[in-house]
Order: sequence, then C-alpha cells, then structure tokens
Amino acid sequence: MQFHAIGTIRTPYLTNAPYQPVKEDKGEFNIILDNKFVAGLQGLSKFHYIYVIYYLDRVSLKSPAMLITPPWVDGVEVGIFASRSPDRPNPIGISIVELKRIEHNILYTSGLDVFDKTPLLDIKPYIQDLDAKQKANYGWLEFNNREDREHLQLHIKGLPH
Amino acid sequence: MQFHAIGTIRTPYLTNAPYQPVKEDKGEFNIILDNKFVAGLQGLSKFHYIYVIYYLDRVSLKSPAMLITPPWVDGVEVGIFASRSPDRPNPIGISIVELKRIEHNILYTSGLDVFDKTPLLDIKPYIQDLDAKQKANYGWLEFNNREDREHLQLHIKGLPH
Repeated sequence: MQFHAIGTIRTPYLTNAPYQPVKEDKGEFNIILDNKFVAGLQGLSKFHYIYVIYYLDRVSLKSPAMLITPPWVDGVEVGIFASRSPDRPNPIGISIVELKRIEHNILYTSGLDVFDKTPLLDIKPYIQDLDAKQKANYGWLEFNNREDREHLQLHIKGLPH
Repeated sequence: MQFHAIGTIRTPYLTNAPYQPVKEDKGEFNIILDNKFVAGLQGLSKFHYIYVIYYLDRVSLKSPAMLITPPWVDGVEVGIFASRSPDRPNPIGISIVELKRIEHNILYTSGLDVFDKTPLLDIKPYIQDLDAKQKANYGWLEFNNREDREHLQLHIKGLPH
C-alpha cells in the first residue's frame, strides 16, 4: 500500500518532541496543505477539534520491538499496540488538536506533538458523540492514588513537571 | 511511503457497510492480528476502547473529488477533510470501538464500520482525557431543532431509521 504526503506539519520541535500534544506550548503550530487540496477544507473550520494523521518519518525501524517500557512508569512493560510509541509496524501517527483558524491552505492549531516538517497524510473532523467516548478509561495507566493520578495526567498531557 | 497489512478485520458486511460503527449490530466483529505481532497486545485488554486503523481497500480513486454531498443532509456540500468519506487522497480509515476480549491473536470488538477482510494497519489505545474531548462540537453537522438533532444523531451513529 502506498501513501503520499498531502502537506507538511510545522512545529517548533527540531530535536525533541513531547509524547503528547501540549495545548499551550510556545511557538507556532500549523499544517500546510498542498494547494491542490484546498477545496477539500470547505466546512472544516466549523469544527473545534480535528484529527491530524501523519507519517512518523523520524523512526525507521524495520522490526520494532513488540514490548516497550515507558520511561515514566516504574518497570511496566506493555505491548506496542497498548501504547502510543512511534516505533510501530506501520509508523502512522494520530493527534487530536484544536483548530484555531484556516487561512487558505494553512491550518493554525494548538500544540502538535510531532517534529517540524512531519509529512501530513490526512485530516478528519473530530465529531462529538462519535469520537468523544465518555466511558473511556486509562487502561494500564490506572492510578493508585491521587498523587499518581496527577503525575500521570501530566505525562498523558505531555506537560513538563 | 509504504505500509503493510498487519492483520485482517472480519465483519458481516460483504456488499454494504454502515457509515459509522453500529455498536450493537448483528454478527461477529473481530480483528485477526498476524501471529508475529501477538506480543504487542500485552496490556491492551485493560482499555475499554481502541482505535482501529485500516486501509480503505474498496476505494481506489486516483483523484478523489475535493467536495462531497452527504446523502442525508439536504444540499450541503463539504470538503473531503471536513467529512469521513472513504474517498480520500490517502485511504486511511479510523474507527473507535469497544474492545470486548482478546483471545491470543483475535480481538473481539463492538460493531466496526468496514467491509469484511479490510486490511489492518494499526491498533492504538483510546485514552480518557487525551482522546475524549468534552468540548468537541458537531461542526457543519449542527442541528437546528430537536427533530434534526435526533435524526442526525442516528446518522452519525450509523443507525437505520
């Protein structure tokens, strides 16, 4: 299966990127869509949130490990499909971000957790009811006490602490 | 960019599939992961919901239209990136479903809105806080009155009516 870039994601992250989108991170975050696809944006600006789908081009492991140990959870080992690690059999990344405004072919967003110049694969609207699952849980990220909870939430949100 | 199937999605939909996942649809829905990736499932069963990412292999439009007219909204024309239509520049599909149980390399899920034998690209955990956006809206799908609202919600949820 062959996919091709339909645009480029610009972020301030040149050598380091957060694990998750940091909503209010400094710098500009935008998606530059190839001009030939501009008509496809019609109606998108009415959505508060969008899915950004991209190619994780900085990882090129031919055979990624099936188990990973997240650095911030003591000794827990989880499968790659139970994690958001970028080293996956198919390096497809998905982020949900706020859409601030669209100017012609440029989409300005809240913080995106990808390296600068990451190739864009797709954009989809994030739709209330369909995508916001109220009964979702934290899986193996469950918290034992309130201190854990606050600490892990900072990790989940990619906030420095 | 080249991606490869890491498994196959089995559904009862041979000639027609709903627009969105139908949670309690009849028939069996499961994902058969290639055996060599089984270790990557460790810890996944603790999540209530998962993202299923797949290749929309029944569409093969080289140049999909940038504007579409959803059949169930009178005369509204929206861009492809403001819709979930499968005819996209990169035919990548994403569905969020309930994970019921995992038996070795088979994941049993709630209704998946894809054709039988759709190629699987990735599985990711759906994480509360990170993925369930309380402030999400309906974008151009906004409802004018309660009757519209109920009708459109049936469409969004892919329920027959």
